[in-house]
Amino acid sequence: MSLTIKDVAEKAGVSVTTVSRVLNDRGYISAKTRKKVMTTMKELNYTPNEMARSFLSNKTRFIALIVPTTENPFFGELTFHIEKELAQKGYNLFICNSLNDVENEKKYLRLLQEKRVDGVIVGSHNINISEYEHFENKIVSIERELTKGIPIVQSDNYAGGRLATQELIDKGCRSILCIRGDQHIKTPANDRSIAYQEVMEENNLNYFFEEVPFQLQDQEKREIVNQIFSGEVMYDGIVAGDDIIAKMCINSAVTHGVAVPEELKVIGFDGTKIVRQLSPELSTIIQPIEKLAQNSVEILLSILNDEKVNQVTKLPVKLLSSISTKK
Amino acid sequence: MSLTIKDVAEKAGVSVTTVSRVLNDRGYISAKTRKKVMTTMKELNYTPNEMARSFLSNKTRFIALIVPTTENPFFGELTFHIEKELAQKGYNLFICNSLNDVENEKKYLRLLQEKRVDGVIVGSHNINISEYEHFENKIVSIERELTKGIPIVQSDNYAGGRLATQELIDKGCRSILCIRGDQHIKTPANDRSIAYQEVMEENNLNYFFEEVPFQLQDQEKREIVNQIFSGEVMYDGIVAGDDIIAKMCINSAVTHGVAVPEELKVIGFDGTKIVRQLSPELSTIIQPIEKLAQNSVEILLSILNDEKVNQVTKLPVKLLSSISTKK
Repeated sequence: MSLTIKDVAEKAGVSVTTVSRVLNDRGYISAKTRKKVMTTMKELNYTPNEMARSFLSNKTRFIALIVPTTENPFFGELTFHIEKELAQKGYNLFICNSLNDVENEKKYLRLLQEKRVDGVIVGSHNINISEYEHFENKIVSIERELTKGIPIVQSDNYAGGRLATQELIDKGCRSILCIRGDQHIKTPANDRSIAYQEVMEENNLNYFFEEVPFQLQDQEKREIVNQIFSGEVMYDGIVAGDDIIAKMCINSAVTHGVAVPEELKVIGFDGTKIVRQLSPELSTIIQPIEKLAQNSVEILLSILNDEKVNQVTKLPVKLLSSISTKK
Repeated sequence: MSLTIKDVAEKAGVSVTTVSRVLNDRGYISAKTRKKVMTTMKELNYTPNEMARSFLSNKTRFIALIVPTTENPFFGELTFHIEKELAQKGYNLFICNSLNDVENEKKYLRLLQEKRVDGVIVGSHNINISEYEHFENKIVSIERELTKGIPIVQSDNYAGGRLATQELIDKGCRSILCIRGDQHIKTPANDRSIAYQEVMEENNLNYFFEEVPFQLQDQEKREIVNQIFSGEVMYDGIVAGDDIIAKMCINSAVTHGVAVPEELKVIGFDGTKIVRQLSPELSTIIQPIEKLAQNSVEILLSILNDEKVNQVTKLPVKLLSSISTKK
């Protein structure tokens, strides 16, 4: 039979509320009373049950992270860094794979509603959800525009789009395709294709788009990519939506007899650790994943403390290119 | 001001304990009393605070998963499937990246001690920790031998080791190196190199080992791999510890002027989705990651319900080979 807060209260001759105040450092307690309670806890060898403490303090030190899926290397790496940051600050992390399903996302928000978590980091790709408005001082978003009151941490997608397009032009490409995601989803990633189009226009080149929504199955993505290379291929460069699409393009091109990089040059996006391990030759735009994690954790903990924060935090990206000049 | 269990009790004319019993479906309650409480809750439009409910029932429906890091694709994919399985059964998942640090692992076990989680799934690669003994009916392990009382879910590593080695021999290799992990860690993965050695001996071939511990930094792993290919290369086949090591071997071999697959054939281990997306040409042993997740969740929930379970669950692996016969 383990001791409870009630045993401490009885032994110390104070109310349960008083013990709770001491435990949670809340409300007025005289120095004398505090000392009495502390001494009694020590005498009884009482360790407060964490759940009881949370129940009383109304703080759990639990944070939830909503991502489409940790299977994706960008989100697997992001999850790792977010958990590491939170652990250093004494928080634990729930992981929620929304699988791009709105109902899943709503279910996880209920954890917040039921006060089982203190705050939420949203890195999911779903359509806008009105529920987010109720939690404006408890949520930070990564790369997703939710509501006006929810701060967002993002990569400089616009700069990334410009860097990728300019690199292909510099290396001799003239007919460049941009593969982008679902344009109905409000994400700063859309800035990449805006930047692409601008750079193409500045260079008096025609621009071309292909949409490959993130939430498609691999096989569906592969079919869209294969269509680009069946028949006569009209492109000599591709700005891909992410590294996986970039690799699909390269594999499909080679299968269809297109020489890479001689006839086709491809630049991906993300630059995760695993992609750089498995495909060190792939040119890509590197997202600052660790910094995205650090900034989102810092901002979330600030708003939970009622501190003012920037609405938008934009972090620089980097071009990693191994493309040589066109022959 | 939100309603509490006390308001319900007062309105229904019963004790707080009675309402708590109804909420948690525990202890004796007459049908009449139960109905009265339920009706009152409905009239008051009372929704029980989840934290209060947990506090009263002593169940959180939270599970923790300890992995080295979700950055690694095997663990990123495993985390995804475990969370999906648990969510379907009404549980939420904490993610704990132990980073192969014993202190980190101990810290996460404290969540269990403090009753903030109901159970733990351990997929970490650390040395044995005596603390695990205290939680024998609350833990399941994936691919790690903890204590005798903790059930383990694993791939058939022995079969995987045999399959990989035999495939290389069948395709003409005679001088095969086996790259394995740290042999001080008790993991069923060690069965792979045992199987490799057996197959080599059965075929009257010499066996060679190289150790590349999982917890090393990429750069350190790459240096060990590069040493294999600096100077005269004595191998025509490699059974690699995982797919990342396999790719490192291939990249290093090519850099050192060794023709792959003509002069060197490599087989990896894991076969994660991302590796198959990025390197579809890589031959590997596919681990049943989704099944590992399903089985570990099922076994954990069974032991939390005091049901009997198998101590060892071994799941079949599959060879994915695109190696053609040696010229």
